[in-house]
Order: sequence, then structure tokens, then C-alpha cells
Amino acid sequence: MTPDQLLTATALGSWKQVTARLDKVFEPMSAEDLQRQVAPERNRIYYLLGHLTAANDRMLPMLSLGDRLHPELDEPFLLKPDKTLPDSATPEELKQAWLDVNAKLTAAFEKLSPGQWLERHTAVSEEDFAKEPLRNRLAVLLSRTNHLSFHFGQIALVK
Amino acid sequence: MTPDQLLTATALGSWKQVTARLDKVFEPMSAEDLQRQVAPERNRIYYLLGHLTAANDRMLPMLSLGDRLHPELDEPFLLKPDKTLPDSATPEELKQAWLDVNAKLTAAFEKLSPGQWLERHTAVSEEDFAKEPLRNRLAVLLSRTNHLSFHFGQIALVK
Repeated sequence: MTPDQLLTATALGSWKQVTARLDKVFEPMSAEDLQRQVAPERNRIYYLLGHLTAANDRMLPMLSLGDRLHPELDEPFLLKPDKTLPDSATPEELKQAWLDVNAKLTAAFEKLSPGQWLERHTAVSEEDFAKEPLRNRLAVLLSRTNHLSFHFGQIALVK
Repeated sequence: MTPDQLLTATALGSWKQVTARLDKVFEPMSAEDLQRQVAPERNRIYYLLGHLTAANDRMLPMLSLGDRLHPELDEPFLLKPDKTLPDSATPEELKQAWLDVNAKLTAAFEKLSPGQWLERHTAVSEEDFAKEPLRNRLAVLLSRTNHLSFHFGQIALVK
């Protein structure tokens, strides 16, 4: 690998490590486990699973990597707070959506060259990107990986 | 900037963004705020502030960036669970240590070339590194950034 390929492979390794750890957390959880809140009056794990899946799914169009798999998750898991709508997906559906979205993203990430990681994402204008070249696809990957870790820390409070 | 410089600058941008957000969280906290637990029977914010500072401080020797500033934080904040020892640092001392450690790290990070980011860190042997070249300094930076986000998510539960 060339140095720039090693750099992007290292960043992709971080994404894979965090998603794999969360896979192991979600996989054995029962419907009852998912109903638990991470702290009193805070989000349920069920909500955070949907929230992380929806936020990741949004990366597909944002990084021009293909169509979204689960746009129906935005309303209950990104736009509305927890417990404002009846639960719209079964635990099995939600767990499968989590796996499918991340699998589609990871496969697309693996194909990007270092130059493509440095390209602008669709949430920044060409004009702004000319001034701020760090607002690239890699920045989105790192930001979403940290978003996973942020909520992972909350889920880890539930014993 | 060359492509590999843009890649490492983007990763460094993620580190700076997360530390800056935590600066804003810790800065206004009173001694009383720091005593709050992130959830019942879970760590106090005081402990997490010391824990993150100590974990970051360890990057200095790990990445061959200089001597540690606060090795005395390991015992109370990394090796022992919360509330097993009397509080050894005042809130002001702990907040200052957080700022000093991150300032020293960030200044050192800014000077690393892309090639230096790809070098082995001291926690991996030369033999293992030959087989696993992704166990480099950049991987440690990304892992520590996600460690910050993990506990940031917990601290954000306290309103």
C-alpha cells in the first residue's frame, strides 16, 4: 500500500472496529433488553439502535455512495425524540437494518481511493469547500465513527 | 497541502473538534457539578475528567512525543475505579491538567508528517508491526478520539 492508502485504511479500520464492537452489543439483546433506558429519563437502547442506523444510512447519499436503505427511520429516530411515536420497527427489523446499512457503507468505503476520500461531500457547497478542504468525505467518516462511540458510551452504562 | 497531508490534517481536525467540545463542557463546571454521577452507581464526572486526562497523557510516551505531564493520575483515574481513593486533585488542578495535556499533544501532533503518523507506536513490537502496519500512530489518535467521545456521551446525560 502507498502511504495515502495506509492512512485511509487506518481510518477505515477505526470505523470497522467501532461498528464491530457495537454489533456484539446489539446482537444478543432481547426485545426486553432494548427497552431499557441508558439512564433515568434518557433514551432507550431501542431508540439509539434506530438513531445510529438512520444517521449512518444518511451517509449513503451524503457521500454519494448510493441510495438510502431505510429512510423511514428518520421520522421516529432522528426527527422525533424517543417515545413520541409508537415503536414502528420490530427489534429484529431494527437489528437487521443496522447490519445492512453498515455492510453497504463498509463495502462502498473499501472501494474509495485516497483521492476520493478527499473529495467534497454533498452537504458542503463547492464554494465553501474551496475555502475549507477538510470538509471532505473522510471528515464525515470520522465524525460518524465518533457519533457511534458517543452513544456506545451511553449504552455501556446499562449492565 | 499534499493529499497525504490533507488526510492527516482531517484526522487531526476530528481530534481538535472533540477536545474543543469537551473543553466547553468541563470549563464552566463547578466542584459540585463534577461530583455528579453520569447515571446511578456509575462514574462521577470528576472521575471521567481525570480518566480522560490520564489516558490522553499516556499518548505522549506511547507515540514518542515527550515525557508525561501527569503520571500521578494513573493510580486514581486509570488503575482504580471511582470512589476507591480520596479525591487527590482539586477541580481546578484537574481542569488545568486536562488543558495542559491536550495542548502538549496537539502541538506535537501538528508537527508530525504523514510518514511519521504511519510509524509504529511503542506499544507494538517491530515484529508485529511488520505484519500489521495499521497499528500506527494515527490508529492511536483515532482510538483516543473515540475514547473521548465514548465518555462524552455519558457526561452529556447529566442535565
